[in-house]
Amino acid sequence: MKALHKLYKRIIQRVNINLREFNFDVEPFLKNLVPFDQLVKVHGFYAVTIQHPLDFQFRHSNLAGSYLLGKCFTTNSILYRSDIRGDELKKKGTIFHSGKYQIPIARDEAIRIENSFLIKTLVHNHSHDPETPENFVISNTVSTHYANIHGSPTDGSFLGPLATLDLSTVNDCIIGAFSYIQAGEINHFHIEPGTVWVRSPGDFNFLYRYPSRFLNRYVKFRPDCQPEGILIDFVDKYKDAFEQIFGTVNVESSINVPATASLDRFAVVQPKTSIGDNVLVAQRSFLQNSHLGRGANAQENCFIINSFLKGFNVTAHGAKLINVDLGTMVFVGFNSFLRGKGCRLEIGKDCVVMPHTIIDIREPLQIPPACLVWGSITCQADLEINSIPLNILEKLEDGFSRNNLVFEGSGKKFVSSFQNRIHHILEANGAFYNGKDRKGHAQNNQNISFNIIQPYSEGDKKGVYPTILIQP
Amino acid sequence: MKALHKLYKRIIQRVNINLREFNFDVEPFLKNLVPFDQLVKVHGFYAVTIQHPLDFQFRHSNLAGSYLLGKCFTTNSILYRSDIRGDELKKKGTIFHSGKYQIPIARDEAIRIENSFLIKTLVHNHSHDPETPENFVISNTVSTHYANIHGSPTDGSFLGPLATLDLSTVNDCIIGAFSYIQAGEINHFHIEPGTVWVRSPGDFNFLYRYPSRFLNRYVKFRPDCQPEGILIDFVDKYKDAFEQIFGTVNVESSINVPATASLDRFAVVQPKTSIGDNVLVAQRSFLQNSHLGRGANAQENCFIINSFLKGFNVTAHGAKLINVDLGTMVFVGFNSFLRGKGCRLEIGKDCVVMPHTIIDIREPLQIPPACLVWGSITCQADLEINSIPLNILEKLEDGFSRNNLVFEGSGKKFVSSFQNRIHHILEANGAFYNGKDRKGHAQNNQNISFNIIQPYSEGDKKGVYPTILIQP
Repeated sequence: MKALHKLYKRIIQRVNINLREFNFDVEPFLKNLVPFDQLVKVHGFYAVTIQHPLDFQFRHSNLAGSYLLGKCFTTNSILYRSDIRGDELKKKGTIFHSGKYQIPIARDEAIRIENSFLIKTLVHNHSHDPETPENFVISNTVSTHYANIHGSPTDGSFLGPLATLDLSTVNDCIIGAFSYIQAGEINHFHIEPGTVWVRSPGDFNFLYRYPSRFLNRYVKFRPDCQPEGILIDFVDKYKDAFEQIFGTVNVESSINVPATASLDRFAVVQPKTSIGDNVLVAQRSFLQNSHLGRGANAQENCFIINSFLKGFNVTAHGAKLINVDLGTMVFVGFNSFLRGKGCRLEIGKDCVVMPHTIIDIREPLQIPPACLVWGSITCQADLEINSIPLNILEKLEDGFSRNNLVFEGSGKKFVSSFQNRIHHILEANGAFYNGKDRKGHAQNNQNISFNIIQPYSEGDKKGVYPTILIQP
Repeated sequence: MKALHKLYKRIIQRVNINLREFNFDVEPFLKNLVPFDQLVKVHGFYAVTIQHPLDFQFRHSNLAGSYLLGKCFTTNSILYRSDIRGDELKKKGTIFHSGKYQIPIARDEAIRIENSFLIKTLVHNHSHDPETPENFVISNTVSTHYANIHGSPTDGSFLGPLATLDLSTVNDCIIGAFSYIQAGEINHFHIEPGTVWVRSPGDFNFLYRYPSRFLNRYVKFRPDCQPEGILIDFVDKYKDAFEQIFGTVNVESSINVPATASLDRFAVVQPKTSIGDNVLVAQRSFLQNSHLGRGANAQENCFIINSFLKGFNVTAHGAKLINVDLGTMVFVGFNSFLRGKGCRLEIGKDCVVMPHTIIDIREPLQIPPACLVWGSITCQADLEINSIPLNILEKLEDGFSRNNLVFEGSGKKFVSSFQNRIHHILEANGAFYNGKDRKGHAQNNQNISFNIIQPYSEGDKKGVYPTILIQP
């Protein structure tokens, strides 16, 4: 395993060099996280489909347990149980619209991962950065458990567990555990854990930070330790169910799936689950005893348990619903944790649950329709502080602040920006398919083969995959 | 020429997108600079030598009049009469020392130029950036006449004429004409013309700015115009001499060159010039009626006319000496213009002439030994303001300021940093070769063939070179 250890050391050094101004050393964070044995044993797989440009180039990397779709190049990297989804890559000859620019795409966009170590990280390529439309780059970066690198080119950075980068461009930054960043381009920032930051320069700035005592119960990440907390324990409980799904070459669906819907073969579906028309259930999602109404979606790494989704719902990457009822058009953002413990949580239609919201209740709670909800909520009193009706927010032109939240700029622009995005997500996922037009992922994702790849199993190169090039 | 025009338009858009926060449009600066006919007529050439890793990949680019050495990839770029010198690229398996880091180099470093337009720009690859040791990238960048991109990875930037980036990493910046930047990593800066900035964070900060009335006489660059001024006129006067050299496949040296020295076949040498042992004369330098003593060097784009260099002198890229006498170990920085108009300028031994210094005199002037000299000097009174003895500067621990100069930090560190660098340059160039050890460029650069390449000469692709891959 000499080559694999050398590769691991090299990645650490490269990240440390990029973060040298913070005097930050990633090694203590990584050293107990790397299951070298698993890196050798667990196979990786890549998708073969006519829907996406087939072009994979794997060089001197380990891809254990990872899922690769679209055009993707890895060099000197370790992707451990990561999910690299390249199904919205820009195509040569098309025009990419960004602000006032119409940008002709000069060659098919590719995901390029180099000198990076991604652990259980979800990468989704839909970058809005107009500066590098043909390259979606992740380089010199370490990203840990259940982090999301979502449409965010990233260089020289460290992401704590359950951190999310969303539609940002990130250079030389440390992103604390459970922080959500949607802030355009950021350089040389050290973001504290539990920061929820949504910024559109000139328009608005939403900045919330979790109280650290509260956050530490849910997720905590210290050097020389594994990630800890309720969110980590929760996910660990379901590990075995996924092991089964990933250990089998082909699996048949256990439930009835409408012709207009898509249930990924790497999703776990447990009894008494039903899905409606135009539903999209992505790989690595977990459904149990729940109903997903027409046009609802369950994105990667989400959990939907004992819940009822009325329809046109977005359950974003890593969101968790336990004993929850969602009205129509409710959006639940990335990594949010919504749990009724022995009781029901009801969320009225058109609500926007901000990314990285934790609602964890022991008494029933109802959230009225069309509210924005954020931060930590454990009871009715918390809800009153950490929510605002959208129609009131829309009228605020000079911002407001509440406890750990500061909001600056135009409420109207903030609300419409969210609503546009939710609409875009539903549209892209095929929620509005009418049998003829408005097809999306739910209708297109149906025919994919997965090829299985493994590394050298002995010798110096043990754990390193051979160079593999796959083209149409 | 459809493809070439499209390529030109694409580069402009890519640079504008990167500089959108400044609302900066490069098109008016470029539109009179692009000699489309020349791009078709003038050939490019690349070096074939066993001294440097041979690996060229030219894709959808124009390379008219450009000189390429070392491992270099160009994609969707126009390099017009540029000089891309890759003779200090890091090699696979070696260790790159940077601060406290010993960085193993994972593959041969390459210069990667993409979506860029470089006009008469000198690129030298010796980057000190520890973040990307295998890639020296210039992307989404426009660089104009006699600019230097010296060991400085550059993305999304615009360089005015005679601007120099030196050992910096530059993202999304506008660098004004005749500015010299040696400042580590800089992001999103708009640097005014005539700024001379040398910074080592924590150690020192040297910041000088030319008075704009003075600067405009020497170089001025306005939209919709060609670059203007004394420096531009000066260089234009010697164009024809270079045309002859570049229009001939092989030329013989016109003077006697010691076996330990190197005279590039693309240098212009006019009568009554003599060169000593261990002298390095680089391509695109111009020598006339001058003597270069032992270990002196004449770097790319420099002019040495009616001058006497006693020995161990550095005449850096683009520096110009007319009627000048240099003592031993005098360093003349990038793009400095030193002229005695009908009189002699004498510079005492061990002097450091800062990059981008203009000394233009009509009465004789003597600069005492071991001084630092900077900025605009036209007479003795200017010299007293714009110079300081090195032994006094070394004692200053709290900085000083004089007219347009602010110096902060440790004088001692500043002086030793310059002296180390001068020593490194002389060493690398072979100035100290003793017939056995301490070889450098002067001893190694002697056997190079140049292959000539040309674009399609008609049709849609007129002016675009075919894809050309060259490997050992």
